[in-house]
Amino acid sequence: MGKTKKVRVGMVGYKFMGKAHSHALRDVPFYFDTEVVPVLQAIAGRDEPGVKAAAEKMGWASYETDWRRLIEREDIDVIDIVTPNNTHAEIAIAAAEAGKHVICEKPLALTLEDSKRMLTAAEKSGIIHMVCHNYRFAPAVQFAKKLVEEGRLGKIFHFRATFLQDWLMDPNFPLIWRLRKEVSGSGTHGDLGAHSIDLARFLVGEFSEVVGMMETFVKQRPLGTEMDINLRSRAVSSEMGTVDVDDASAFLARFENGALGVFEVSRFCRGNRAGNRFEINGEKGSIRWDMENMNNLQVYFADDEPGLQGFRTINCTEVEHPFAGAYWPPAHIIGYEHTFINLMVEMMNGIAKGRSPQPNFEDGVRNQAVLEAVEKSVQTGTWIKIADVLNK
Amino acid sequence: MGKTKKVRVGMVGYKFMGKAHSHALRDVPFYFDTEVVPVLQAIAGRDEPGVKAAAEKMGWASYETDWRRLIEREDIDVIDIVTPNNTHAEIAIAAAEAGKHVICEKPLALTLEDSKRMLTAAEKSGIIHMVCHNYRFAPAVQFAKKLVEEGRLGKIFHFRATFLQDWLMDPNFPLIWRLRKEVSGSGTHGDLGAHSIDLARFLVGEFSEVVGMMETFVKQRPLGTEMDINLRSRAVSSEMGTVDVDDASAFLARFENGALGVFEVSRFCRGNRAGNRFEINGEKGSIRWDMENMNNLQVYFADDEPGLQGFRTINCTEVEHPFAGAYWPPAHIIGYEHTFINLMVEMMNGIAKGRSPQPNFEDGVRNQAVLEAVEKSVQTGTWIKIADVLNK
Amino acid sequence: MGKTKKVRVGMVGYKFMGKAHSHALRDVPFYFDTEVVPVLQAIAGRDEPGVKAAAEKMGWASYETDWRRLIEREDIDVIDIVTPNNTHAEIAIAAAEAGKHVICEKPLALTLEDSKRMLTAAEKSGIIHMVCHNYRFAPAVQFAKKLVEEGRLGKIFHFRATFLQDWLMDPNFPLIWRLRKEVSGSGTHGDLGAHSIDLARFLVGEFSEVVGMMETFVKQRPLGTEMDINLRSRAVSSEMGTVDVDDASAFLARFENGALGVFEVSRFCRGNRAGNRFEINGEKGSIRWDMENMNNLQVYFADDEPGLQGFRTINCTEVEHPFAGAYWPPAHIIGYEHTFINLMVEMMNGIAKGRSPQPNFEDGVRNQAVLEAVEKSVQTGTWIKIADVLNK
Amino acid sequence: MGKTKKVRVGMVGYKFMGKAHSHALRDVPFYFDTEVVPVLQAIAGRDEPGVKAAAEKMGWASYETDWRRLIEREDIDVIDIVTPNNTHAEIAIAAAEAGKHVICEKPLALTLEDSKRMLTAAEKSGIIHMVCHNYRFAPAVQFAKKLVEEGRLGKIFHFRATFLQDWLMDPNFPLIWRLRKEVSGSGTHGDLGAHSIDLARFLVGEFSEVVGMMETFVKQRPLGTEMDINLRSRAVSSEMGTVDVDDASAFLARFENGALGVFEVSRFCRGNRAGNRFEINGEKGSIRWDMENMNNLQVYFADDEPGLQGFRTINCTEVEHPFAGAYWPPAHIIGYEHTFINLMVEMMNGIAKGRSPQPNFEDGVRNQAVLEAVEKSVQTGTWIKIADVLNK
Repeated sequence: MGKTKKVRVGMVGYKFMGKAHSHALRDVPFYFDTEVVPVLQAIAGRDEPGVKAAAEKMGWASYETDWRRLIEREDIDVIDIVTPNNTHAEIAIAAAEAGKHVICEKPLALTLEDSKRMLTAAEKSGIIHMVCHNYRFAPAVQFAKKLVEEGRLGKIFHFRATFLQDWLMDPNFPLIWRLRKEVSGSGTHGDLGAHSIDLARFLVGEFSEVVGMMETFVKQRPLGTEMDINLRSRAVSSEMGTVDVDDASAFLARFENGALGVFEVSRFCRGNRAGNRFEINGEKGSIRWDMENMNNLQVYFADDEPGLQGFRTINCTEVEHPFAGAYWPPAHIIGYEHTFINLMVEMMNGIAKGRSPQPNFEDGVRNQAVLEAVEKSVQTGTWIKIADVLNK
Repeated sequence: MGKTKKVRVGMVGYKFMGKAHSHALRDVPFYFDTEVVPVLQAIAGRDEPGVKAAAEKMGWASYETDWRRLIEREDIDVIDIVTPNNTHAEIAIAAAEAGKHVICEKPLALTLEDSKRMLTAAEKSGIIHMVCHNYRFAPAVQFAKKLVEEGRLGKIFHFRATFLQDWLMDPNFPLIWRLRKEVSGSGTHGDLGAHSIDLARFLVGEFSEVVGMMETFVKQRPLGTEMDINLRSRAVSSEMGTVDVDDASAFLARFENGALGVFEVSRFCRGNRAGNRFEINGEKGSIRWDMENMNNLQVYFADDEPGLQGFRTINCTEVEHPFAGAYWPPAHIIGYEHTFINLMVEMMNGIAKGRSPQPNFEDGVRNQAVLEAVEKSVQTGTWIKIADVLNK
Repeated sequence: MGKTKKVRVGMVGYKFMGKAHSHALRDVPFYFDTEVVPVLQAIAGRDEPGVKAAAEKMGWASYETDWRRLIEREDIDVIDIVTPNNTHAEIAIAAAEAGKHVICEKPLALTLEDSKRMLTAAEKSGIIHMVCHNYRFAPAVQFAKKLVEEGRLGKIFHFRATFLQDWLMDPNFPLIWRLRKEVSGSGTHGDLGAHSIDLARFLVGEFSEVVGMMETFVKQRPLGTEMDINLRSRAVSSEMGTVDVDDASAFLARFENGALGVFEVSRFCRGNRAGNRFEINGEKGSIRWDMENMNNLQVYFADDEPGLQGFRTINCTEVEHPFAGAYWPPAHIIGYEHTFINLMVEMMNGIAKGRSPQPNFEDGVRNQAVLEAVEKSVQTGTWIKIADVLNK
Repeated sequence: MGKTKKVRVGMVGYKFMGKAHSHALRDVPFYFDTEVVPVLQAIAGRDEPGVKAAAEKMGWASYETDWRRLIEREDIDVIDIVTPNNTHAEIAIAAAEAGKHVICEKPLALTLEDSKRMLTAAEKSGIIHMVCHNYRFAPAVQFAKKLVEEGRLGKIFHFRATFLQDWLMDPNFPLIWRLRKEVSGSGTHGDLGAHSIDLARFLVGEFSEVVGMMETFVKQRPLGTEMDINLRSRAVSSEMGTVDVDDASAFLARFENGALGVFEVSRFCRGNRAGNRFEINGEKGSIRWDMENMNNLQVYFADDEPGLQGFRTINCTEVEHPFAGAYWPPAHIIGYEHTFINLMVEMMNGIAKGRSPQPNFEDGVRNQAVLEAVEKSVQTGTWIKIADVLNK
């Protein structure tokens, strides 16, 4: 423990994602022996009573009411951005220019253009940067990646993914920031689709081209408060506002390696609270994962003995499963919050080794390119090549 | 039983589907009390020893070596067509013109054009006609239909379906007739996609427009024998032939009622032996079904008490589930073959009442239109309206 | 087919089990190429209109109103007994003495004493005899047996089984014959427990000793009609009768090979329509089965690679799974009725080879000994050795 | 937050359970707003380097090398005991006598006698006391309790539970303290059986009588080190020692309310890493739970509409599920460690209100009485009444 180095984190924002990040930062040294250990130095938020209470509740040593002040502080080494999407670019670029390492929630930015500027700023200043696609960090998903990389599935033919929810179906659920294009960039597409795209890029590789569709089922909603941790919100006014983002999005894809992809995200799927699922089909085997039972991985091998072929249900809580050995005995499951702990371990290791963590801002840019290609495809009604979007 | 009327069936073909149909016809009177009862009068096939043995094995009273002879026979009331796809139109039209009722395997024809001619012939002669989309007839699927029709799911927002297999993945699996466009019309798309499309039309309604993609992963295969009931085949030659149909197909769809659809079929999905699955998401609830556990239906209702909301696993083997009461006690499950028994009951009832069964040749035509629209979309890279294909 | 030999079956009784046996006998030659083929020659029942209608419905060539007449007929080779338990011994012994082969529904007799007399009569006359523990004949269970015999599980440590139902929970469900000791011998214990005991003997081996408990939750019920195939019955009188058999039974067991067993059967388990389940735990692996998804077998191997260990869900519908290759393609599932078809194939093969089928009357006797040992244990409150019961 | 009161905790022991308790104490104020908030004041352990490192790693403010010193310290309000079973009584009694509140790991003591002395001491000094049956505190189990208490299942007929593991099957796994009677009291029976008994008492009520069996499959093992968090250990010597505790235990039970119970625990069940499962069957419904998917509860209601009856899979992560609302959005699952957080919340609320938490030392005593009754039954081969053991 004597050799550990502390990095002092300043977090901007303190709601749902702030809670997840704070808890993760607290738990990194409890569960892991990283060379670099995070210190919860300060958080920033505009509402002083709110930010003060949050700092106390979540264990931050101090607080600021302006994020710019956080970046100015010399006792801050890392800026962690958990604010609405439309603020990511400005904060991240300022932090990078100030030489702070940056962790940024996904999607990286409102636009591909913004995300490229963020990457440029980060590379220019030589900081360590990371974008928070946390689902990669479920031990089951990390283990899936290992199987793919070892060639255990052989050539990949298919990837299919959904991320289905149902909390938005009530027409009286209000128009929160996630439903306003100027703040969120897109709706379900950017919020949930970005996760599925990241899993696909992580497990299969780069996208080549896409064709998609989007729909907004409820086009007018009452104005209202932001939602709480249980996804509840309430209308604050009888005034209605226009939903200018999608409720649902789906697209077909071809990957550079020849695999086919099918993607669907929606917030109008009754009974699907967090149906973040994927299946990979390869020459030698297949893999299935479902976030609602995130510790389990379903794995099928074609070279299993005839008569004994079937998907194995593997509870990825053993020492062989990445990150899992640090927690509890086999089958003593972990949960959603641990994906963030593991992600922070990756960030700390990146800082320690001076090595770019995965996923980083370049992943954020490439993710954004796929998101924008789908949006463009919806406008044109045709297939769009990712390269054309990325290099425009 | 005294009031029952017998109809004498003549079946053309006697392989996999012939076995399924023969068994179903035998079992109709065992399990059900239909007004009209089928008699296994005669089967036709070109190979005399083969057709003779099949007749004996499966309980047919006589056989013919030319299907035309079957149609000529006066002691035949119904022609049941279980031959390769490229022969459906000729046989069905001849049968209809001879005034025989017709049951025809799916897909109805090689082309939309052919299927329309079949429908016209059938309507002109006033016969009872049916196309064999058997999965509709699983009690769980029939019960799903009932729930949809009663409005228990409310407005439908989403339908997603897959039909995934893996028996074709060995590059040495030979070029059987299902892989030759001139005989089968298309590959996985027409064979499996036709089933998913039928389920969608049955449960959601008519398609409006589609955009799709297709792929052939293995483009050359050795020439070989047809496969047996266990999907095994072997090469008979070292000569290779070109696969001119798809191994996999996927498409996005919009339905006339505003619902969104996502479809994917493939024979390159390891571990998926018969992954015929769908999910419907509606305003008030959702439904999931998987043929590999075909007795079960997963049903979710949004108006279940908060805290007690979750998908119910319903074993559809009770008197409330269509057709199920005729078989065994609750949870004493039935299987694949019973979908054909139920289908034949629908045909017998159609004959008895002079009422067109569901699905009939018009369903076959509409199904074919969706298949062709997807194919056209693959060629053009754009969305295709079903109406434009259907009315061309 | 030319070499096949026909055996003419006479069946006594024609209700639920009569339906299952009739269907199985009809389907043996459709699906299998056995040397000996059953002919549905005659059925017997006391109620002439009933037995006549059943004969016609189920395809029997003739009928009798007295089972003794069936045994006298020279055109009957096999007697198939599907009557209430209290009649098994008399019919089976008469049939054996007349030199007819005998198939008898389980439990073999009302008492161990009776079952021994049946075995003696059968052995003395040298007939082929079989008791109908049909669940052994699910392909998944047969495959489990194969794995155990090949030593794939190693030494067996544990066997646990339940058979849970819920159709008897309504206090107004009437006092049918299955609830009257003089007709059924015992309640849930003999009806369902006999199945679990058979599976244990088949898969693990002979029982050594047991200790048990039983309970009757509803002690008075209205008199009523027998139940239909959907387990429905209705009271015919306001008069109440006493239930003198158990509603639930459970026991602990030690096997001769050192394994431990835990058994529980009940008709008071809401939501369990036919919860016939078992799990075997051995040195090298484990197996789970559930009749409600009877095509699936869950198999775990301890020597699977670390990190990749988990129960495999095997859909036992492939050529490697006993009996399954005769039916449909992989994952095109079969159902409850096929367990009887397979059982009849075993009987036909026994007749053809002059080899005793499994399970036979000796299995029936040993099963009865375990049932009686549990009953005795309930009376004495102590462990009872099977040998002491069997050899008394 | 201003009204919170801090209680200073001193923990004795710091291995597996120490890790679980430390993490829980840290997280109570992060997730919950309890009136009383725990402070991690000091831990005690005999090995100074070990205890020092643990204190630093887990966030304890100080450490002691003698637990007696911890009890003497005036800055300690609560003693938390996570040491091997044979030390519980001495420490707990000393702590109680010193007026400290006590949290004690299960099983409460080595013997019923000891556990009674602990209860007496605790009651005499008027402290708040709790025994750590953590599985009660899974939100799904708490919700099950709520359903039972509200009468949603009606009269209870059956409870069946298993706790099955497989980490002890290698004959070379060494003789750790859990396998030595003088330290652990019993083997699987006390370690795992105590959990199942607690769940039964929580959900069904008090036991009336039991009959059981036990077995030790591997009777000699090499001496070795204690196991790590991943249940790994290694032999330190070629010397062998005798295992004097059970590897497996099973028993039948009758509850005071007339329900029947079947229990089985074992560490020789391949593929069962932590098979802590139960099912309750009541007049009006049933409930199933499995720790390996601990967020899910399966619930069946008999009054669901006919045709729509089936077990619902409820992901107990919503505001209606006890404790769950404090964590994450619906379906963003929690894990094993959260059962301890919830347990500590119950302890803090007990201290705040001066109200005995559930489960407390009296629960520990009653649990121990059932454990001992089973042991006695194994010795005598007969049923044992709990009252006779408890009041001896």
